[in-house]
Amino acid sequence: MIYDRVALIGLGLIAGSMGLRMRQDGLAGEVVGYARSERTRAVAARRGLVDRTVDDAAAAVLDADLVVLCVPVGAMGAVAAAIAPHLKPGATVSDVGSVKRDVIVAVGPHVPDGVHFVPAHPIAGTEQSGPEAGFPELFDNRWCLLTPAADTEPDAIDRLTRLWQALGSTVDVMDPDHHDLVLAVTSHAPHLIAYTMVGVADDLRRVTDSEVIKYSAAGFRDFTRIAASDPVMWRDVFLNNKDATLEVLGRFTEELFALQRAIRTGDGDMLQDYFTRTRAIRRGIIEAGQDTPDADFGRHPRKVPS
Amino acid sequence: MIYDRVALIGLGLIAGSMGLRMRQDGLAGEVVGYARSERTRAVAARRGLVDRTVDDAAAAVLDADLVVLCVPVGAMGAVAAAIAPHLKPGATVSDVGSVKRDVIVAVGPHVPDGVHFVPAHPIAGTEQSGPEAGFPELFDNRWCLLTPAADTEPDAIDRLTRLWQALGSTVDVMDPDHHDLVLAVTSHAPHLIAYTMVGVADDLRRVTDSEVIKYSAAGFRDFTRIAASDPVMWRDVFLNNKDATLEVLGRFTEELFALQRAIRTGDGDMLQDYFTRTRAIRRGIIEAGQDTPDADFGRHPRKVPS
Repeated sequence: MIYDRVALIGLGLIAGSMGLRMRQDGLAGEVVGYARSERTRAVAARRGLVDRTVDDAAAAVLDADLVVLCVPVGAMGAVAAAIAPHLKPGATVSDVGSVKRDVIVAVGPHVPDGVHFVPAHPIAGTEQSGPEAGFPELFDNRWCLLTPAADTEPDAIDRLTRLWQALGSTVDVMDPDHHDLVLAVTSHAPHLIAYTMVGVADDLRRVTDSEVIKYSAAGFRDFTRIAASDPVMWRDVFLNNKDATLEVLGRFTEELFALQRAIRTGDGDMLQDYFTRTRAIRRGIIEAGQDTPDADFGRHPRKVPS
Repeated sequence: MIYDRVALIGLGLIAGSMGLRMRQDGLAGEVVGYARSERTRAVAARRGLVDRTVDDAAAAVLDADLVVLCVPVGAMGAVAAAIAPHLKPGATVSDVGSVKRDVIVAVGPHVPDGVHFVPAHPIAGTEQSGPEAGFPELFDNRWCLLTPAADTEPDAIDRLTRLWQALGSTVDVMDPDHHDLVLAVTSHAPHLIAYTMVGVADDLRRVTDSEVIKYSAAGFRDFTRIAASDPVMWRDVFLNNKDATLEVLGRFTEELFALQRAIRTGDGDMLQDYFTRTRAIRRGIIEAGQDTPDADFGRHPRKVPS
């Protein structure tokens, strides 16, 4: 057991997966869960995401050794303000937000003296959301990034590190601004681009919806997975990681224009070189265990004669 | 048996999958395969992609009832010129190119009188390529589009339709220009965008390669699958479907700028509405059987307690 009592504020995909794993492996004496919606609390109770649900965030954090904010990034500040007066001295407050600088700015000032604040971001998820979506293996073989301030109590960081390791993850500590830039590249810009491409396909009136769907196996369907992610969560990510996301998108547009120009002028060598280079990155991701080597993500039944 | 003798010109992912399935299900009396490279022919022979390999395209088509051009789109014209004098009267020439108008322009003039030309495009594939990549189930539950000219002999179209159905596909007939626009949306533009995003990630020097790879599970890794596709094939697709691809990319950029503007000005409602709308398309694709409903393409081990 790593914490006596853990409070999860918000009960979506990430909190649900944390709760299921903590309960399965006995990582906490008790896991208490708060969600604003009665339906969410009912699903959480039925699925056993937590030991106990409460309908008041302040009540959830009473006597908790660890409080994890698992709400959309834009809601973190208000939730922190609501629970702050009820936090136990010596407790740790953490979060699972995909953006770190703005969460630190929104939450930090509410954290009382004597309470530790260790922001965190598990690099894991699926396109599904809500209390039905969680599963205990979500964090297996994934990274969790912590972005504590330099003067944070090392014991609080160590303990949260042990929890994330027990949840299945490898933990890295990172500067929050660097985190926000790295995630703009590996997550936020790709999501916006996927949303955009799916939106364009939806808009093109000469190409009927039905054709876009029927012939999606030619590549388009890969984009639709991440473009099916939770709209409110992603709205908040973009609004709260504005600068880094816009910087990466600017770089992306510049590069896209260069490739469009190569197509227009018939520069086949440039295209072939570019496409050869990008192959290497996929090999790296597969070697790092962050994706499957199976063709088509393994989603197609595949029997190759030897 | 649908054809007495089929010649496959080129022995990559598509031809290999066709050959394996034709042999497995007895769809042709004999399948002859030609590839320029000796290594490719050796792999094809070892894996049994065809009954017999030959080192000369003209020899491959001798007495063949169906000749399928399975080379990159940019190589189709030269191959058609080489085989044309050797085609059997009454034979059918087809292809599997991802672009149809330019293939028709390049191949059509070489097809002799008395030989039928039925261009085809199976909407199936993986990010893997070469003679090792094929498997007999590749076309199961996928679409194959035929784009014959209006005066094509109906019997030739019907017979090729029966072959593709026997390979596992559903067949549609489509105008070649419409095909090229639809595929620009569902395949060509998404591939170029994925290549671009992977290239940008590779270029950003403040974000090390290793970080891009480690934290790729946050969305980026989905892009790397299609950006690992065959560079020569894709170079030719873009060079030969220039207008439609550039048109869709123009529309994409316009839309991306609108979303960037919403981020910059903090227009959360616009973002949330947009992201909600794109969710519906994924549902459509799953209902149409063109992708799996499992979270994360089913690539993550997932056990949800009931």
